[in-house]
Amino acid sequence: MTIDAQINLSLEQAIASKIDDTCPPKLKSALHHAVFPGGAHVRPKLCLAVAAACDPDADLNDAMVAATSLELLHCASLVHDDLPCFDDADQRRGKPSVHVAYGENLAVLTGDALIILAFQTLARKALTYFRELTLVMSDATAPPNGIAAGQAWESESEIDLKAYHHSKTAALFVAAARAGAVSVGASDAEWRGLGEHLGSAYQIADDLRDAVLSPDELGKPAIQDVRNCRPNAVDSYGLGGAYTRLRDAIEAAASSVPTCAGTDSLRQLIYAQAIRLTPEHLVHEVA
Amino acid sequence: MTIDAQINLSLEQAIASKIDDTCPPKLKSALHHAVFPGGAHVRPKLCLAVAAACDPDADLNDAMVAATSLELLHCASLVHDDLPCFDDADQRRGKPSVHVAYGENLAVLTGDALIILAFQTLARKALTYFRELTLVMSDATAPPNGIAAGQAWESESEIDLKAYHHSKTAALFVAAARAGAVSVGASDAEWRGLGEHLGSAYQIADDLRDAVLSPDELGKPAIQDVRNCRPNAVDSYGLGGAYTRLRDAIEAAASSVPTCAGTDSLRQLIYAQAIRLTPEHLVHEVA
Repeated sequence: MTIDAQINLSLEQAIASKIDDTCPPKLKSALHHAVFPGGAHVRPKLCLAVAAACDPDADLNDAMVAATSLELLHCASLVHDDLPCFDDADQRRGKPSVHVAYGENLAVLTGDALIILAFQTLARKALTYFRELTLVMSDATAPPNGIAAGQAWESESEIDLKAYHHSKTAALFVAAARAGAVSVGASDAEWRGLGEHLGSAYQIADDLRDAVLSPDELGKPAIQDVRNCRPNAVDSYGLGGAYTRLRDAIEAAASSVPTCAGTDSLRQLIYAQAIRLTPEHLVHEVA
Repeated sequence: MTIDAQINLSLEQAIASKIDDTCPPKLKSALHHAVFPGGAHVRPKLCLAVAAACDPDADLNDAMVAATSLELLHCASLVHDDLPCFDDADQRRGKPSVHVAYGENLAVLTGDALIILAFQTLARKALTYFRELTLVMSDATAPPNGIAAGQAWESESEIDLKAYHHSKTAALFVAAARAGAVSVGASDAEWRGLGEHLGSAYQIADDLRDAVLSPDELGKPAIQDVRNCRPNAVDSYGLGGAYTRLRDAIEAAASSVPTCAGTDSLRQLIYAQAIRLTPEHLVHEVA
């Protein structure tokens, strides 16, 4: 079974237990719509890769549980971000966003339910590192530095840019890297850097894709940051400058991988992801 | 220190750690607005009372942590329920609701943050029954039977009334009763009934208050159920019929208290709460 298939199966189980006859049918359907078909599973894969790099012989049960929880939290943030009071995005992953397909109220509840299911999954399935993983996930999502705070910066007249970028994007990458280590009993402190740099790379890559790809290629509305007057790397540094910063962030991420059993394979994975993230015609354009 | 003061202190601690300089100021303020000054702390007090009734000599640390988590979840549900896409209520506890005071986007994020903090508080502070309490809280809030599902029934064209009332109101009362037992190491199964009956009583009392009190007395807009075309006990059974059902639910709750060290004192507490919940002029009117 591919890693994506394993992640999907675990996500299906996290939601499936909800799909009994006493659940309101539209909420059931909206939950499924929000999670499937999934995205690239970047955060869950990072978590699993770090776990395997820390200890290639470890049981990855808790790492897969953490990976599932991360993806549920990520999906929750997408559903709420797309709401009319935030990005007002009508598409996500090439489909109508949840509030367009099911209404605003069901989109709010779907996001709420996904957050709760992320914590419930840890409680139901994590064998050993349940408390540690719950702390990692709540750090990454709660104020002061989690994704809820990242979104909240967009409502401030003066934005703390560093806090904004950290909370909005890096927080879940940091959680993925930390959770990978924690889930096999390794120390998580030295893995924060990898999460920070990858989060930063991902943010810049997203800004670049937002600037140069069409809505069809993106599977969601384009130039959202500009439309929503939000800080954006392409706006600040130009296409070439943003591209350079993306490469720097990838190099920093690769360098930050601590010495462990799987250092080399993890670095290769980082470079492979970097190529996937960079829009092809941009590589030609800036070259 | 009164029990309310202890609950407030614990709530303050659950939110206070968030209030550092890296948190967006409006989110900080909105979190405080959503939780303080609190309501009657009915659910936290039920949890603490059940814990003390199960074992008068027990350490109540985990019960207080559970009580705090319950209140944070309750506050989260109020903030999201008041949103324009649900009740569109402009007042709550005699103050502007969160979305009126801070905007819709911050209200969504404040609810999200309160849900996460409820689980984080358990992970940070529960000493012994962390996993059990996390399962109780997630059962009470997630689909298929938690409060998110309760709200979602309002978007269905055909409502399963029993599931709707259970999920929307009783679920958190059941959680409060179960959490009280669980937090002192007692079995929770026999406490479900108390939660169900109290939830039912509370729902009817709320319908009665909604029907006969002014917005000033309620601290929130009146006749919301009628305005929102929702099932309502007064609408279904009339004032007298609803009042009889309230008394029946209270009696059922008192009878359902299992035999334990504090059966009598818990029954007295239930009757005292019943008097507090029933609008005074209604007692005269129906009498």
